[in-house]
Amino acid sequence: MVLSQNEQKLRHSAAHLAAHALKELFPDVKLTLGPATEHGFFYDFLPTTNLKESDLPAIEKRMLEIANRSLELTHEMIDKQQARELYKDNPFKLELIDGIADDKVGIARQGDFYDLCRGGHVKSTSQLKHVKLIGISGSYWRGDRDGQALQRISGVAFANAKELRSYERKVEEAKKYDHRKLGKELDLFSFHQEGVGFPFFHPHGKIVLNVLKSYLQRLLVDAGYLEVETPRMLSDELWRQSGHYDHYRDNMYFCSVEDKQYALRPMNCPGALLLYKERPRSYRDLPLRLAEFGHDHRFELSGVLHGLFRVRAFTQDDGHIFCAKQDIEQEVANAIALTYKVLKRFNFAQICVALSTKPENAMGDDALWQQATESLKKGLESAGIDYEINEGDGAFYGPKIEFAIKDSMDRLWQCSTIQLDFFQPINFDLWFINNKGEKERPVMIHRAIYGSFERFFGILLEHYKGALPFWLAPVQVRILTITDEQTAYAQQIETLLKNVSIRVERDVSSDPISGKIKSAQLKKIPWMLVIGNKEVDQQTVTLRFVNGKQQFGITHEQLVTLAKEAQNA
Amino acid sequence: MVLSQNEQKLRHSAAHLAAHALKELFPDVKLTLGPATEHGFFYDFLPTTNLKESDLPAIEKRMLEIANRSLELTHEMIDKQQARELYKDNPFKLELIDGIADDKVGIARQGDFYDLCRGGHVKSTSQLKHVKLIGISGSYWRGDRDGQALQRISGVAFANAKELRSYERKVEEAKKYDHRKLGKELDLFSFHQEGVGFPFFHPHGKIVLNVLKSYLQRLLVDAGYLEVETPRMLSDELWRQSGHYDHYRDNMYFCSVEDKQYALRPMNCPGALLLYKERPRSYRDLPLRLAEFGHDHRFELSGVLHGLFRVRAFTQDDGHIFCAKQDIEQEVANAIALTYKVLKRFNFAQICVALSTKPENAMGDDALWQQATESLKKGLESAGIDYEINEGDGAFYGPKIEFAIKDSMDRLWQCSTIQLDFFQPINFDLWFINNKGEKERPVMIHRAIYGSFERFFGILLEHYKGALPFWLAPVQVRILTITDEQTAYAQQIETLLKNVSIRVERDVSSDPISGKIKSAQLKKIPWMLVIGNKEVDQQTVTLRFVNGKQQFGITHEQLVTLAKEAQNA
Repeated sequence: MVLSQNEQKLRHSAAHLAAHALKELFPDVKLTLGPATEHGFFYDFLPTTNLKESDLPAIEKRMLEIANRSLELTHEMIDKQQARELYKDNPFKLELIDGIADDKVGIARQGDFYDLCRGGHVKSTSQLKHVKLIGISGSYWRGDRDGQALQRISGVAFANAKELRSYERKVEEAKKYDHRKLGKELDLFSFHQEGVGFPFFHPHGKIVLNVLKSYLQRLLVDAGYLEVETPRMLSDELWRQSGHYDHYRDNMYFCSVEDKQYALRPMNCPGALLLYKERPRSYRDLPLRLAEFGHDHRFELSGVLHGLFRVRAFTQDDGHIFCAKQDIEQEVANAIALTYKVLKRFNFAQICVALSTKPENAMGDDALWQQATESLKKGLESAGIDYEINEGDGAFYGPKIEFAIKDSMDRLWQCSTIQLDFFQPINFDLWFINNKGEKERPVMIHRAIYGSFERFFGILLEHYKGALPFWLAPVQVRILTITDEQTAYAQQIETLLKNVSIRVERDVSSDPISGKIKSAQLKKIPWMLVIGNKEVDQQTVTLRFVNGKQQFGITHEQLVTLAKEAQNA
Repeated sequence: MVLSQNEQKLRHSAAHLAAHALKELFPDVKLTLGPATEHGFFYDFLPTTNLKESDLPAIEKRMLEIANRSLELTHEMIDKQQARELYKDNPFKLELIDGIADDKVGIARQGDFYDLCRGGHVKSTSQLKHVKLIGISGSYWRGDRDGQALQRISGVAFANAKELRSYERKVEEAKKYDHRKLGKELDLFSFHQEGVGFPFFHPHGKIVLNVLKSYLQRLLVDAGYLEVETPRMLSDELWRQSGHYDHYRDNMYFCSVEDKQYALRPMNCPGALLLYKERPRSYRDLPLRLAEFGHDHRFELSGVLHGLFRVRAFTQDDGHIFCAKQDIEQEVANAIALTYKVLKRFNFAQICVALSTKPENAMGDDALWQQATESLKKGLESAGIDYEINEGDGAFYGPKIEFAIKDSMDRLWQCSTIQLDFFQPINFDLWFINNKGEKERPVMIHRAIYGSFERFFGILLEHYKGALPFWLAPVQVRILTITDEQTAYAQQIETLLKNVSIRVERDVSSDPISGKIKSAQLKKIPWMLVIGNKEVDQQTVTLRFVNGKQQFGITHEQLVTLAKEAQNA
């Protein structure tokens, strides 16, 4: 997401406001950095004693007071030596000052508060009345885990009260449909201290995962993919060869086996590379499209774990395509088409596409990067897709296309990705014999649609506000009888639906029908079949949807037809 | 397997014969132990320099020479001190002598060879003419990995030439259909040095695994199981609580996470226990039958790894049933019925059942063990099943029923198991509220049918000699056209079968039809559909089975019906 200049100024100024408030309330905190971010701003600081969530209201109150002082924001360039004097007690700012190439550095001021700053502010603190602090968390100086531990306050800032109110409403709605809350209410999954960051899927959660997987499996067969299974643990040397050890080892788990070091895989590509190399390949084998529902482990700091959105173990719907250079555009176009087909099944409001280019820690030379990036652009253009460019956001082994989906609450989620990789085929010395009988280097394309099943499941739960559509719902139909008299008939209907693979259950409680309806609604079961004596006499059912609408007098035949339709809707 | 007294004598005597031959050829080897085993005998010894596979023929030759000397075998009891003198240069035998409670120890003699021995031999070496050495491998003194490394020669011994010849024929057949060989020929799986003992499944192998899994998934739903998914890695403390750390840690892989130790799961039960405890349970929740296709890691010494039969990572088809004590027999009977249903699907010649009782390293007290063992017996008896008792062969947490299947080459494979567990519910303090409103302890039943998918797949490959039945075959149908003229029609037939979910492919090579048939036979594809101009004219196909039998003039409708029948056969 690119911020407009006004957003940038507003949020960055709000960060100064937060720092100003902090300094007034806790004069001994040492300020470090406070940028505008995708969603608002944050400020990192070293406190004398750690601040708590409960300190936020006072800080926010002080921020609003300072805003009401209508202080002018100014910016000037001063000598480095002068700046060093200002910050003689703050080693973080001194380090920042030393890192600036110029002789002069910028200082922003408002009232008696000042901050080291490149500039770009609103004119007066009076423009900062629509701010809100949203959290306090741990962070590290310059994001380096081995560096000094700091605290971070985060907030949002808007140009007017209406925007702030709209933001607050969305937050309330999101809180109401937080997937962690829904996961508990609908008995889908849980987390336990015996495996921090590792989800436990309950029976109903596992059904949804299975449906998501088998839906994709069917499409993959049609799209010419071959499913494989490779080990979850592979030798250290392999991860060194693949570059993961150099670029990713902080997120990897290691184990010793007979005095050799192994790592749990954080990604599935090396397994696919070894399978490619398993025998000599010819142009007739290409494109070779391998699919793996690969279970991966990635270490994350416990502080950043977040329900199913950020876990330490997850299953990816990985695809690895090996093809000749001249087939890249076609394969990328096919992968884009498959991605759109799958994402559209979930009724997302919008799909936003971005092309991410060479990052700082990239491997390989510029010419290859340029070639790879051009191929992706052509693939996107041939599919007629609008996209933006995210400079420097590619993987270390190649540029990538990223798909973000906008959910029912207008939030964007990045999930699908198509990554081009010229480097692993060189690293692993892959080749095939082309139709001229010569050895040729293939290209590797990594692609995932759901990304992680776990995270995608979490997104779907929030997107659908817990009411999963018929085809995805763990229980699709619940049969409710008015009295025990209808039990035999209800069993008959249950069997009828089970025979066409519908996930159906009967409410066998002794609750009155209103209680049974309430209970099915709480579990967000898409269809209720209400059965009283009238339905038994007529050999029909009453179909009640989760939204309360009803259809009466549905015959057995109609019921089966409707259920099959809903299954494919 | 219990050996008859004659088998026992013959094999034990053959071990002496092997030791005798060793001593004559390599006088400086130190003998240790040489028992009869399930399949023959072995002898462990410390060589001065390691012997090789190529030394076996000379040893076997010498064994037969000694047999032909018709030496009498005698046995006497001598004073311990005298025995110590005999073995003054052999620390292993001295340790064995020290371990004998009696004042006297037994010595067996034949010619000038003697060996420490409790007795039980044939009368003369002339009865040992039908022996064969089958291998040499590494071993450890008393099987302790940290103990002295030894070498082991293994062999077989039979009462007559006919039995030996029959054994040799079976070995030849087994070699021909070794699943490792079939796995390569049929392109099903491979092993790579980057993950020793971790199988890589190729596309066709993965299809078989998927079919095996979805077959079971359907049956499990009908049998009232709920599928769940729990983490592959859990904290050390949990494994200590479950007893795995004490009883199994040599086979476990450990990892560090934020200064806490975690272990990759070797079994899935702790995940199920945590799910049970996730909320209070009532008698209405029971029996709670949780199923997990759990991927586990177990360390095995690289020397004992063997294709898919012994790996370091595998998926179990685990079931964990939590029930009240009075429901044990019914649940065990249900589990037995499900096991039989599944195993019978694979046309095994016989299913042998054994009940394994309390082992030496057991946890828990005798009364509970007895109760548990009685419950399993009742379950078996109520299912009307013959079984034998394996004393002391239970798991450390409870007694178990084991099912061994006899394959098409008359070999027995242990795979399915039903284990009763009174201890984990105590360890983890599980309870439910019974229908009197009181807290009650549930019982846990562990059961697996395939056992490990990987090993079961290996067994099936050998059992079916590579020719998997229609429903399991990775490619069920291959379409062979006589010339390119029939391509359009062949595509039409392909679509017809794909629409009813048949795994079908077309041979698009330019080979003559005889070559195409040969190639499909080599891949052991169950059905070939041969299409020439006659078939196109008549709108039929010729159906050719892998055994060469043919059916002509099959209409499209008949083809679909036959394929659906074969799918369910």
